[in-house]
Amino acid sequence: MQNALLPQFIIEEHIKNALKEDIGFGDITTDFLVPENKTVKAVMNTREDGILCGIDIVETVFKTLSGEINVKKFYHDGDKINKGDTIAIIEGNARAILTGERTALNYIQRLSGIATETYKYQKAIGNNKARVTDTRKTTPGFRIFEKYAVYTGGARLHRFNLSDCVMIKDNHIAFAGSIKNAVETIRKNLSHAHKTEVECETIEQVKEALEAKCDIIMLDNMNCELMKQCVTIIGNNAIIEASGNVTAENIENIARTGVDVISTSAIVAKAKTLDIALDM
Amino acid sequence: MQNALLPQFIIEEHIKNALKEDIGFGDITTDFLVPENKTVKAVMNTREDGILCGIDIVETVFKTLSGEINVKKFYHDGDKINKGDTIAIIEGNARAILTGERTALNYIQRLSGIATETYKYQKAIGNNKARVTDTRKTTPGFRIFEKYAVYTGGARLHRFNLSDCVMIKDNHIAFAGSIKNAVETIRKNLSHAHKTEVECETIEQVKEALEAKCDIIMLDNMNCELMKQCVTIIGNNAIIEASGNVTAENIENIARTGVDVISTSAIVAKAKTLDIALDM
Amino acid sequence: MQNALLPQFIIEEHIKNALKEDIGFGDITTDFLVPENKTVKAVMNTREDGILCGIDIVETVFKTLSGEINVKKFYHDGDKINKGDTIAIIEGNARAILTGERTALNYIQRLSGIATETYKYQKAIGNNKARVTDTRKTTPGFRIFEKYAVYTGGARLHRFNLSDCVMIKDNHIAFAGSIKNAVETIRKNLSHAHKTEVECETIEQVKEALEAKCDIIMLDNMNCELMKQCVTIIGNNAIIEASGNVTAENIENIARTGVDVISTSAIVAKAKTLDIALDM
Amino acid sequence: MQNALLPQFIIEEHIKNALKEDIGFGDITTDFLVPENKTVKAVMNTREDGILCGIDIVETVFKTLSGEINVKKFYHDGDKINKGDTIAIIEGNARAILTGERTALNYIQRLSGIATETYKYQKAIGNNKARVTDTRKTTPGFRIFEKYAVYTGGARLHRFNLSDCVMIKDNHIAFAGSIKNAVETIRKNLSHAHKTEVECETIEQVKEALEAKCDIIMLDNMNCELMKQCVTIIGNNAIIEASGNVTAENIENIARTGVDVISTSAIVAKAKTLDIALDM
Amino acid sequence: MQNALLPQFIIEEHIKNALKEDIGFGDITTDFLVPENKTVKAVMNTREDGILCGIDIVETVFKTLSGEINVKKFYHDGDKINKGDTIAIIEGNARAILTGERTALNYIQRLSGIATETYKYQKAIGNNKARVTDTRKTTPGFRIFEKYAVYTGGARLHRFNLSDCVMIKDNHIAFAGSIKNAVETIRKNLSHAHKTEVECETIEQVKEALEAKCDIIMLDNMNCELMKQCVTIIGNNAIIEASGNVTAENIENIARTGVDVISTSAIVAKAKTLDIALDM
Amino acid sequence: MQNALLPQFIIEEHIKNALKEDIGFGDITTDFLVPENKTVKAVMNTREDGILCGIDIVETVFKTLSGEINVKKFYHDGDKINKGDTIAIIEGNARAILTGERTALNYIQRLSGIATETYKYQKAIGNNKARVTDTRKTTPGFRIFEKYAVYTGGARLHRFNLSDCVMIKDNHIAFAGSIKNAVETIRKNLSHAHKTEVECETIEQVKEALEAKCDIIMLDNMNCELMKQCVTIIGNNAIIEASGNVTAENIENIARTGVDVISTSAIVAKAKTLDIALDM
Repeated sequence: MQNALLPQFIIEEHIKNALKEDIGFGDITTDFLVPENKTVKAVMNTREDGILCGIDIVETVFKTLSGEINVKKFYHDGDKINKGDTIAIIEGNARAILTGERTALNYIQRLSGIATETYKYQKAIGNNKARVTDTRKTTPGFRIFEKYAVYTGGARLHRFNLSDCVMIKDNHIAFAGSIKNAVETIRKNLSHAHKTEVECETIEQVKEALEAKCDIIMLDNMNCELMKQCVTIIGNNAIIEASGNVTAENIENIARTGVDVISTSAIVAKAKTLDIALDM
Repeated sequence: MQNALLPQFIIEEHIKNALKEDIGFGDITTDFLVPENKTVKAVMNTREDGILCGIDIVETVFKTLSGEINVKKFYHDGDKINKGDTIAIIEGNARAILTGERTALNYIQRLSGIATETYKYQKAIGNNKARVTDTRKTTPGFRIFEKYAVYTGGARLHRFNLSDCVMIKDNHIAFAGSIKNAVETIRKNLSHAHKTEVECETIEQVKEALEAKCDIIMLDNMNCELMKQCVTIIGNNAIIEASGNVTAENIENIARTGVDVISTSAIVAKAKTLDIALDM
Repeated sequence: MQNALLPQFIIEEHIKNALKEDIGFGDITTDFLVPENKTVKAVMNTREDGILCGIDIVETVFKTLSGEINVKKFYHDGDKINKGDTIAIIEGNARAILTGERTALNYIQRLSGIATETYKYQKAIGNNKARVTDTRKTTPGFRIFEKYAVYTGGARLHRFNLSDCVMIKDNHIAFAGSIKNAVETIRKNLSHAHKTEVECETIEQVKEALEAKCDIIMLDNMNCELMKQCVTIIGNNAIIEASGNVTAENIENIARTGVDVISTSAIVAKAKTLDIALDM
Repeated sequence: MQNALLPQFIIEEHIKNALKEDIGFGDITTDFLVPENKTVKAVMNTREDGILCGIDIVETVFKTLSGEINVKKFYHDGDKINKGDTIAIIEGNARAILTGERTALNYIQRLSGIATETYKYQKAIGNNKARVTDTRKTTPGFRIFEKYAVYTGGARLHRFNLSDCVMIKDNHIAFAGSIKNAVETIRKNLSHAHKTEVECETIEQVKEALEAKCDIIMLDNMNCELMKQCVTIIGNNAIIEASGNVTAENIENIARTGVDVISTSAIVAKAKTLDIALDM
Repeated sequence: MQNALLPQFIIEEHIKNALKEDIGFGDITTDFLVPENKTVKAVMNTREDGILCGIDIVETVFKTLSGEINVKKFYHDGDKINKGDTIAIIEGNARAILTGERTALNYIQRLSGIATETYKYQKAIGNNKARVTDTRKTTPGFRIFEKYAVYTGGARLHRFNLSDCVMIKDNHIAFAGSIKNAVETIRKNLSHAHKTEVECETIEQVKEALEAKCDIIMLDNMNCELMKQCVTIIGNNAIIEASGNVTAENIENIARTGVDVISTSAIVAKAKTLDIALDM
Repeated sequence: MQNALLPQFIIEEHIKNALKEDIGFGDITTDFLVPENKTVKAVMNTREDGILCGIDIVETVFKTLSGEINVKKFYHDGDKINKGDTIAIIEGNARAILTGERTALNYIQRLSGIATETYKYQKAIGNNKARVTDTRKTTPGFRIFEKYAVYTGGARLHRFNLSDCVMIKDNHIAFAGSIKNAVETIRKNLSHAHKTEVECETIEQVKEALEAKCDIIMLDNMNCELMKQCVTIIGNNAIIEASGNVTAENIENIARTGVDVISTSAIVAKAKTLDIALDM
């Protein structure tokens, strides 16, 4: 896969499970009506503008069902596609194409929807330096794909899971006694290869986090005025992440405060599927 | 689970995979900052109105992480919840609650979002006899949960997968030669325990399907005027399903045509997550 | 697979598990005695008359063990084979053929046995319209194969599992209060894509089920006289399934009552393996 | 389990897969008709005489579905049961009992059928010293259970799989050049903890195997007269296994030849299910 | 588990697979000789000095096999234990204890061996600020346990896998053209939550990496003199990791150069098992 | 694989899990820095003398990641390799080679280390007839590979797991009452295809085991003088296994006592990884 973060064999495992979920004891309609050796030519078109994501997954879905599938791609993941564009032509075993159609579309429609939404947010930032990033608010069992779609849409990815970056939230601070204590405890235990981020809601917390020398300071649910002050205070001494109530409308204003990264679950959780169809 | 269609052990397997996806090599923040035997009390509140779905899954998420979890539920799946309502109180091992929080919310926010959207569509139908139903357009690997949310929101479920109902589409008809041929071939092969549905786009097709004695006739992408005529033609001789471009706005009009069932992917694919939070 | 209801990748998973079950830590006899690059030619012959089922599975077993396997088939699934017939010639890597032999035969002997038994029952029905069908009485973990063998033997399949058709039994009726109540409750909740069957032991129950408009009426353990009366009462208003104490001897008499379907677990549970051998 | 060869957690995994196979997307009949908190009392009776096998598995099936199940057992695995005997009373959650019934019966009916058939063969041997043993001709994915049933029925088990005993067959001999060569090659490579068996069809082969000092000599498809001669030749210098065309009728005659072990696939492959029912 | 980085259910899965690997078709010795309801008392003693690691895993191994196991622990993971010390008393079902013994010991002996070796390296550093850390050179399929043992032994963990920290090696530099290019490309794409480390073999590379503002600079296979110079050049502008040919003998000298972290595979790859026994 | 005891598909499953363990959410260094279609040539060299084991596994690791990999091997498993030797040249997709490098080395370094250690022990025995054998003291989840390495190093394998040979230890004897009772009970129950071994610590126990006609007598922790006496007593009436405190230094003396087999966990548990590198 062009920009894939995962080896093909991991993708294939997910696809096989998805196909089993959809096929059950067999596609009784297709198996009874379509002779085994028939071929068909299917054209994948988009009925909406957006950013394509998942075309290689589509190819793998059909190839998982039959060795006799040929896919000719006109666009690749990350490309802009416009209503009416032909994305790919899939030719080959008719049963495989009919049986795999829904699963293939379920991947590409949802992933392209997320990539498209992500692109919209990043674009809204304009020339500001800030980059959009995602969160861990994903569909259980589907995170690798949703993260891939976010990346394809032009954002940078936040941590993958609970083990690759420390994120100190209010509850953690409560247990540790203070931000200072929390960061110090982490420093004593944490791998030197991992970063530490602290969620801050007030200027006082930002100052405490700064003094504790954490790597990333999250400005949580602050208004733009407050964020601007925090950015000034922090300077180059930590990466600054804005978070909370981000919309495609207010993201430019947030970016103008000078933050480095703007994280939002909306690019995944509020994204709609992109209307892509398979016509035969 | 109150209305669960699946035994608990299947739910637990999905949850374990979701937790592994989110935990990776361990929740390094919580494990380093929160002593092993600390307890915490968390209150699950909703910040939006909606239909609750997933509260028993939330309980299972936390109990999968620790035997020392107590959940007191004030609402159950299918209940209406209003902004500010306390859904449940979760008390017990602090590490388990902090580590499981995001996964638990990922389930309940998405499922309640779908249940809420579904409820809106069913309610919009008013006193008409029609029932909303879903489609196979679901997130790969997450269908059992999305179907459960649709059911919880008040709709009736369409077929689960490709093996529990025949659905003859235009491509199948092309291979069979005609609707008549297709239905006859199916009848010769199909289990007597399964139904046959035919997608029709014209009155002619409807008549042909009716003559072939299929169980369900889908009126695909027809306008309301045309649907009304088809309803009259079909009468009680088949179940009538309307499909295509269904919105919460036009669904009442579609229902007024007299169809039995209105299927739409929108209740899953366009649903947004419901804003439910865990406050400690 | 010629008539397969399942994609090849699902078959392969089952075969891999079967091979692991049989191979353990390695085929110590073959690995120590047969050089790695030797080839062998094996001839698969049948020592009994019957219906062939599983030849493509046999091919997959050997190909799972080695890329250097060639299979030439003289018969296909569903074909009649007579004592002494050569079914296929398998040539290639000797280790793979010796190691896979038992697993391959375990599939084809049992599946051909079931197909043969099924064929006998269907044939005994003669020119009557009734079709034999199977039940959920299968070997745990082996249902997809046993159902495939039943289908190959000429029967039609009953429901695959508990989720693709409602079957109201006496215990369900007891909980619902009456057949009428039961069917009405189901109708309110059930997908329009699924059917409802009711088990009836008396004429009264048949009448109640008929009035409740269920899709299928099962005449459970009735004698032929009683069945005939029920067939007359039901007419074309429901599909009629006969069940209970079906044998190859009495099935024609049952069929003469006019029922549509005759279900029996005997075609799976009482089938013996067909004697097929691999000679080198 | 009383005589179990496997820890409970392995049994549970197999049962969970069997339940998933049978439940699909949910037991729609039971879930719609039986309230969640209802209880029921079910009596497991046998309608045929036989040897019981699988009662602890039955218990595990129901307990996998619900924590609220109580099983009172009147017979245990290996006991003789007579038509009309009550084997156990199962009380508890009604949904679990109704949903699990078929899967539970699928295990116990098949396993008791095998145990019963095995018992018949061992009993037919009378006072002769020979013991019945099984083969690797089992249902793919179900071997551990079928072996357990054979053991419960009073036979001794042959090797579990291809890695726990060497079995030199004609094809292996062909590759090695001679029985002597084969056994010597094995002796150089094989673990001292494993045995070597040689299949012999003639007296000459028996003598060669004896000279090569293999542990077990299989008399393959010999008549009783020939077997008797071989037994005399071998004496106590190897374990003697008779194999081929064993029936309940001829097994006593085979035993009288003085062989130590009589192996037959019939006790598994030709066994019918035992008619055990769950009455509520 | 006291210091566990992983939830118990993940540990249990690994243990179940290890038990299946060791049990095969059943512990035939124990099952035939030890009555099902016997109990036994086993004392776990150490025959060598070391750091304990894995005592909670031992408990889980036995509890996986039987609900009737009681473990009284006198030492916990991370404690120093001396030859002759009693670590724990395990009482309960005799079959479970005999069958699980080897698997339990396989975990605790290897993990305690690694913890002991790690402790030795960290202790050898004396009062210098440097911390020992591990590498990705682990046993395939066993990394989570080996990392846990390293952590228990007093070291800090390096990255868990290829996705939680960028590590630019010579081959990556070759593809990127220069360290500068490589770090810049990474900076454009990488999550702000992840760090970037560069392997350097010369002072020139160190300077280039420093200028490129990477987070961690690895001094790869340098002698102590060269390392000292690099430490002076880098100052507080990056974390400094020493790597290559680290032994318990030379580690103090390396630490004296002022590096922050010393990584070595030896603490895992060269560790011997610690001699811990279970006496009954 | 040249001497493989396992089919390739089982090896591949283990490798896939190992790769998932190491890749996590993706090799972020390589994916960002190395273009998708670049190729590279890597040379696998050994930096230590030893016995090669795992070269085919290395090939499979890379081929699992990419179809575009070519491996040219100069040595095979079991070959002696000397410091500086080029073992293989791996050419192909650069991403696959860089991402798979660590996992491939983790297999071959550890397995070659075990093969090398094993070879040392067997060689130390000199011209004595005794063969080294391994134990069940292996890394959980990695036994099949460690056993393969032991076999490759020139030893013979002991039992694979608890089900393929009976091993009566002191605790079993305690439950049975005496060695005689234990062996008799086993003989009544055990398959004729499996052997029985008894652990003996005194001459009296050896005599008792001999009289009970067990297949293998283990001389457990005896000194050479005592072992010599036991060997004389036993003669050819049982296989004799020496066990306990075996080292490369004392193994020749043990062998001189005339025992058949010398078992030791040291060849696995004390083996160090062999220093094999991949240079590009």
